[in-house]
Amino acid sequence: MTIEERLRAQGLELPPPPTPKGAYVPVVLHGGTAWVSGMLPLRRGVLLAKGLVGSEVSVEQAREAAREAGLHALSALRATLGSLDRIERVLRVAVYVASAPGFTSQPDVANGVSELLIELLGDPGRHARVALGAARLPMDAPVEVEMAVAVRP
Amino acid sequence: MTIEERLRAQGLELPPPPTPKGAYVPVVLHGGTAWVSGMLPLRRGVLLAKGLVGSEVSVEQAREAAREAGLHALSALRATLGSLDRIERVLRVAVYVASAPGFTSQPDVANGVSELLIELLGDPGRHARVALGAARLPMDAPVEVEMAVAVRP
Amino acid sequence: MTIEERLRAQGLELPPPPTPKGAYVPVVLHGGTAWVSGMLPLRRGVLLAKGLVGSEVSVEQAREAAREAGLHALSALRATLGSLDRIERVLRVAVYVASAPGFTSQPDVANGVSELLIELLGDPGRHARVALGAARLPMDAPVEVEMAVAVRP
Repeated sequence: MTIEERLRAQGLELPPPPTPKGAYVPVVLHGGTAWVSGMLPLRRGVLLAKGLVGSEVSVEQAREAAREAGLHALSALRATLGSLDRIERVLRVAVYVASAPGFTSQPDVANGVSELLIELLGDPGRHARVALGAARLPMDAPVEVEMAVAVRP
Repeated sequence: MTIEERLRAQGLELPPPPTPKGAYVPVVLHGGTAWVSGMLPLRRGVLLAKGLVGSEVSVEQAREAAREAGLHALSALRATLGSLDRIERVLRVAVYVASAPGFTSQPDVANGVSELLIELLGDPGRHARVALGAARLPMDAPVEVEMAVAVRP
Repeated sequence: MTIEERLRAQGLELPPPPTPKGAYVPVVLHGGTAWVSGMLPLRRGVLLAKGLVGSEVSVEQAREAAREAGLHALSALRATLGSLDRIERVLRVAVYVASAPGFTSQPDVANGVSELLIELLGDPGRHARVALGAARLPMDAPVEVEMAVAVRP
């Protein structure tokens, strides 16, 4: 099954491609690598959750938010590449988690997007990852997801 | 107009190339990609502003600081490349904003450097971006700017 | 001397290759670049130190922790590459320091890993670097180290 077929088989719909919140572009494609901007967990322009994880937002909500941000990254990639089937390998995923004092379960949150990538892309979705606690994030998002992806011509 | 001509036309002078605050180099050039270290908003060795944005430093000051850090990145690139005209595309810009509790306007701050890049480089300056809130930054800088740039041989 | 010889000459032993704390892989190798996941300062599964640098953890302890995280990165690279002698150049090192309020000496902490890389790898160990203050880190680690490395076929 191709990635696009798996997406359809799972009944998973990607959100519309994101609009940057500033003077940048969602994806830069250059020399076989797609650099994807930091994505927020928006649904129709509204954040799925808001605030610091560990106090204002639960780990479960934040995991779901990380997954949603990942769907936005895939949507941005599809808008640039034409088809997700051009993804050759996810290289790096960075998951920034707005963290309340003492919150140290950033990896649990990050799994929300990591598991999505493996589920949808299979082995090419297996990525290097960094997860860390941010002080606060744009728009008061609980999580922001950035990635670099190798793509076929 | 080339990038260097545009720089002169705008009367914009780059600061002297930065000196690393540790055991690293300002730029690594390898295989057509220039990896630029995190740059601070220094002017003659002194930070333009100091402290957390949203309490000790205003958004306007932080935007200006992000722009200054961007000028340092360009200065480091010129010292490595010989000329900014070798820049083919800015791939990724990361803007770390030292954020006071509750500060969520990191994108406004990041626009300080993003707009500089587009103004000076035109389309090749359009980049993927991540902006996030750091707890604190080196030397108590309000902002730190890192980038990856594709360059011509 | 090759890197592996230097390692032996210094009597330096790498820790066993790390096990990811989530749904990702320690290293992705693609097109001559190795993307190394965020590494924590673990020794036999236990963190060398725990908590925020500047209050719960001293700069000296955090430097040592950064070095240990760097050894894990090298161990992960060796497991993927077969030999560290395949390292052509360290491109980028990111050092995330869990920072207490007011702590701004992230570069001193980051030198723990930067100096290790130069000591072991020589000139190919000279890297671009970003060091910043995180709110908290996974497992309450004081420091997390991520890198991208150019490798020979």
